[in-house]
Amino acid sequence: MQKLAFIGFGVVGQGLAEILLKKKKELKANFGYEFSVVAVSDFNKGSALKQDGLDLSTLLELAGDNKISEYPGAEAGLNALETIRKSNADVVVEVSYTNIETGEPAHSHFKAALEAGKHLVTTNKGPTALFLRDLVALAAKNGVQLRYEGTVVAGTPVLNLNDLCLAGNEVTEIRGILNGTTNFILTNMEKGRSYENVLKEAQELGYAEAKPDADVEGWDALAKVMILAKSVMRADISVEDVDRTGITGIKLEDIEAAKKEGKRYKLIGKVTREGGGVRASVRPEKVDLTDPLASVGGATNALTFVTDLLGEVTIVGPGAGRVETGFSLLADLLTIHRTQ
Amino acid sequence: MQKLAFIGFGVVGQGLAEILLKKKKELKANFGYEFSVVAVSDFNKGSALKQDGLDLSTLLELAGDNKISEYPGAEAGLNALETIRKSNADVVVEVSYTNIETGEPAHSHFKAALEAGKHLVTTNKGPTALFLRDLVALAAKNGVQLRYEGTVVAGTPVLNLNDLCLAGNEVTEIRGILNGTTNFILTNMEKGRSYENVLKEAQELGYAEAKPDADVEGWDALAKVMILAKSVMRADISVEDVDRTGITGIKLEDIEAAKKEGKRYKLIGKVTREGGGVRASVRPEKVDLTDPLASVGGATNALTFVTDLLGEVTIVGPGAGRVETGFSLLADLLTIHRTQ
Repeated sequence: MQKLAFIGFGVVGQGLAEILLKKKKELKANFGYEFSVVAVSDFNKGSALKQDGLDLSTLLELAGDNKISEYPGAEAGLNALETIRKSNADVVVEVSYTNIETGEPAHSHFKAALEAGKHLVTTNKGPTALFLRDLVALAAKNGVQLRYEGTVVAGTPVLNLNDLCLAGNEVTEIRGILNGTTNFILTNMEKGRSYENVLKEAQELGYAEAKPDADVEGWDALAKVMILAKSVMRADISVEDVDRTGITGIKLEDIEAAKKEGKRYKLIGKVTREGGGVRASVRPEKVDLTDPLASVGGATNALTFVTDLLGEVTIVGPGAGRVETGFSLLADLLTIHRTQ
Repeated sequence: MQKLAFIGFGVVGQGLAEILLKKKKELKANFGYEFSVVAVSDFNKGSALKQDGLDLSTLLELAGDNKISEYPGAEAGLNALETIRKSNADVVVEVSYTNIETGEPAHSHFKAALEAGKHLVTTNKGPTALFLRDLVALAAKNGVQLRYEGTVVAGTPVLNLNDLCLAGNEVTEIRGILNGTTNFILTNMEKGRSYENVLKEAQELGYAEAKPDADVEGWDALAKVMILAKSVMRADISVEDVDRTGITGIKLEDIEAAKKEGKRYKLIGKVTREGGGVRASVRPEKVDLTDPLASVGGATNALTFVTDLLGEVTIVGPGAGRVETGFSLLADLLTIHRTQ
């Protein structure tokens, strides 16, 4: 029986909670997996701690009204760190606010969980991109697992694919479409629409923020490139090491010119092994139409692993979404369950 | 320390042996994985049993001359079943001759290994396609694992992707390009070349047999469809349940007509959940150019999983090859190592 504590209970946390609620029976029947949610702490929605388990339906209902602290019979008023340290959880599910510059407050949550000897599963790109190597060492020291499938390409298996299915290969390059918003914009610009026009639609659809820089300037893809470099290539790189160009400089004429060459512009995140280190970039690249990445349209993401034994292996799947990202956490929980 | 016995030591077995030899140090350093090959038995190349381990370089050299039985200081003259029963192996690597009609003699090897309480890893489609359910039950009864990644799409992770990375999803459909030879023929027919002309080239390149029916009539893809149906969907189907049509009826005119519709012919293997059971087929289908399967050319294979939580996830990679298929066995050995 895995005992879970949620740190953060927004879209992704609730996405996981809904999956766990809906699939409780089959998770037990198919994988012998059983869980109990013993604590939740969300900055806006409140907190609840109950060592013998909280009811997920009640929790989801209370979360909708920001009233988790009113959970009957539970201890309330605990902040994230207190929840991590005081709860009897085996696994901390960290899905709080992502800060890509300092990693805080999530970085402190990560450290507290690992230091307390609790496994950690997360979709939080901030601390993962910035401090992965130290965090991996801290997890190893405490004999627990740190899993973060959902930090790159949502629940589409990318890090688990590398860890669990491609293990034994040397990966010499990883390249992919790591940001759905920019791929949506580029795909629609191919239909002859202007950047400004498509960006506006993306904002209306909720794909892009009012201030879209994190996506269109390549910062979101950059964080994922850093995670891939550190996780798959075991390289130590920092933000400045990544050669980053967004898509704002791409004109309709460029897209038309590429078409005539039998190519297509994609915002490609790439990490290439080079000497003892790696070369990393995020930039628009002209991709040949025969490349599996070329046909990946809209908000779909994709990643190609170039390996010594298998050659090129590409995986294509959703790059965002409540349930799709929630699933990444379930995948990590099941891996911990399987390998304990 | 995993102790391995090879049953069969042809192209695929030697492919694995070469990988093990080349990667010995890094497998230990990266995964704590250590192995010892304690026995080999090949119908043509001879047999050798040495409980404290055979040297892989020596073994590969002797295998080249069909003189495995001359391995110095090893017991020779044991057939496959004797080797399985007499050796101190923990894992049997079954890579002998594939017979898709009866599954023999491999089926007897499978049963002997599992009954002797040894794990089994294999690329042998025969017994896997025909008898998977009973074999899984036998493995469970004896507390050992049966892993067969390489029976479908070589070492490209397909079954492990489902087992280890997509677990928790309900898979409602699987469809893919499961045979490299027919995909090579169809891809080249798109360039205006006749079926006969491309088939001849495929035969010269060693992609197709002199008697090409197993590929072009869809039998090879059918075996893989059966394995996917039984493994991923846990369905009990037999050869007759699969609606099978090969590519021999496809004319250049059909391919041209599809092009005009913005589509492309692919030989698609498909399993769809339907009511309590499944519907399974292998047949040429017109695939939309926006489908990830459309851009998969030549001898590359690909498979799309349609799931309840992630929607569609597609994996693209090599579908054949000495090292590529050899790797599938290493992936399975590492999974056994990780989950023991």
